[in-house]
Amino acid sequence: MMAEKIVLLAHGSGGLLSHELITGLFLKHLGNPILNALEDASAIPLADDQGRLIGQAVFTTDSYVVKPIFFPGGDIGKLAVCGTVNDLAMRGAVPLYLSAGFILEEGLPFADLERVLASMAATAQTAGVRIVAGDTKVVKRGGADKLFINTAGLGLVPPGVHISASAARPGDVLILSGAIGDHGLAIMTQREGLRFETPLQSDCAPLNSLVSVMLAASPRIHTLRDPTRGGLATALNEIAAQSGVGIEIEEMAVPVHEPVRAASDLLGLDPFYVANEGKLIATLEEGDARPVLEAMRAHPYGREAAIVGRVTEEHPGRVALRTIWGTRRLLDMLAGEQLPRIC
Amino acid sequence: MMAEKIVLLAHGSGGLLSHELITGLFLKHLGNPILNALEDASAIPLADDQGRLIGQAVFTTDSYVVKPIFFPGGDIGKLAVCGTVNDLAMRGAVPLYLSAGFILEEGLPFADLERVLASMAATAQTAGVRIVAGDTKVVKRGGADKLFINTAGLGLVPPGVHISASAARPGDVLILSGAIGDHGLAIMTQREGLRFETPLQSDCAPLNSLVSVMLAASPRIHTLRDPTRGGLATALNEIAAQSGVGIEIEEMAVPVHEPVRAASDLLGLDPFYVANEGKLIATLEEGDARPVLEAMRAHPYGREAAIVGRVTEEHPGRVALRTIWGTRRLLDMLAGEQLPRIC
Repeated sequence: MMAEKIVLLAHGSGGLLSHELITGLFLKHLGNPILNALEDASAIPLADDQGRLIGQAVFTTDSYVVKPIFFPGGDIGKLAVCGTVNDLAMRGAVPLYLSAGFILEEGLPFADLERVLASMAATAQTAGVRIVAGDTKVVKRGGADKLFINTAGLGLVPPGVHISASAARPGDVLILSGAIGDHGLAIMTQREGLRFETPLQSDCAPLNSLVSVMLAASPRIHTLRDPTRGGLATALNEIAAQSGVGIEIEEMAVPVHEPVRAASDLLGLDPFYVANEGKLIATLEEGDARPVLEAMRAHPYGREAAIVGRVTEEHPGRVALRTIWGTRRLLDMLAGEQLPRIC
Repeated sequence: MMAEKIVLLAHGSGGLLSHELITGLFLKHLGNPILNALEDASAIPLADDQGRLIGQAVFTTDSYVVKPIFFPGGDIGKLAVCGTVNDLAMRGAVPLYLSAGFILEEGLPFADLERVLASMAATAQTAGVRIVAGDTKVVKRGGADKLFINTAGLGLVPPGVHISASAARPGDVLILSGAIGDHGLAIMTQREGLRFETPLQSDCAPLNSLVSVMLAASPRIHTLRDPTRGGLATALNEIAAQSGVGIEIEEMAVPVHEPVRAASDLLGLDPFYVANEGKLIATLEEGDARPVLEAMRAHPYGREAAIVGRVTEEHPGRVALRTIWGTRRLLDMLAGEQLPRIC
């Protein structure tokens, strides 16, 4: 008899098993052209009452189950606003409205809930979005883990902006907005009770203002993606697969903060596969790179922005890494579960 | 020392404590004019690029934590589509797009997940909505209870329709679309392992097609609300409070199916406070009542529709019940927790 197939932690990793679950089960039943595009946020055409196209909205959702709910550099509330704002921004959209659904575990202290709500409110104000719809459910002690938050988001894409994970083109340069691994390792070291001289901080931040200065420098950006679950390696693999292109990355060019490197070594983790919550990658024509990079470096969330690679015609669907030793290897999608419940 | 204030199951009941939590904590931090209206779905003005108002969208969210996830008449997937479609329909909107966020407990059988997804797909097709954005998280065994689903929804309000929980007016008649208590008691009797000769079935259904025939009969409907958590009594209290009116209900006129009445008696529950997932209440001018009632009775989800009460100038904010014994008493909002995790 075959063993019953069950959901594993790795199905939530953002890596290979997540993709199998999504394409094999979710899209099998719920699939339609909009959902099948597997973008960070889905494009919805807006028409007037005569049926004329007047613009494009984007719509996205994410649930947040991070444990612990408070961590250095943020909390589940800040994360729930940033994550959804960023998914909208990754389509070049101006984020406008959020919904927020709360699942509370019986016994959650009001003080914790209030701290999370205050943090959501402050982050929403920074990001310039309004939380306009909400819902609260309570489950028995043991039925959930303190607090889960779902946010869905709505944004508007400015005219002339066409950003998609399927729009990377051979010859594009690849820009990364800053150092990788901070969020996942801040969570993980806190969970493990590790202390470092320089404390690790999540990079959790709303990236819409960064995207807006990038688009002002060049509205012709092809692709944006925030490397969250599954890390930079997984996000690059998604772009390569969805655009049908190859990607070449210079390991040397990818910034990793020293405490992140030290903690990764200690825990046996690869920063390329660790989640970020305040970073983005962009692909665009080489001729547009300089003004965009300059605009990014002048922005607080893009100070360490750098060109870290290129889009190629070779090995479509694959990401190759030129290591600091000069060797070259494939950078696969995350295969198992590196960091559970980091978002 | 004061005891630390914590979240109780009753905070999720939809009744008085839910309202205290929402107004005292959530609106304190996240409040804004759109959210403060406490409608089933929030109105978002749509403007063209010259800033001219071209229509009105509605946006809503709900998380579903029902236990068990399969129940007579439905499952958590069907509920997650119906609940959000209905919240949009209660503004008179045409539901268009849903997002779906899944929180899966490690160990959930794929077969169960697939059954839920197939049910969501079938219900979405019946309701004429598309699921265009999704997210999946997995939490460790014991970190959640099998499967939680959040759906957010987007709809468009047809021109000339202005339906709001604050729009009930003295002189309005109050129509109920059918018998109350079926959903909550189907769940509760299954949990308790009770068996009745006529098995109890949830009334879970997408109500947008019913609303659409009602609006075709009269676009001047004032108020629509689906009496879910907290039941009919709570929904009526919400309308009375938000519209600043009194409501008078005839107990005799409110249909309750015989098995629901029997099970309620056995379990000591009052059907007026039990959740429904396929019923609505409407208020409208008496002159518009006949065509609307006729349209409802010709629709499969409105066959038992009846006028069950009236909106009055007296006792604003309060609901009075004329009992089958001819006595009169106030019908308060649900005060504690009658049925946990029924939606």
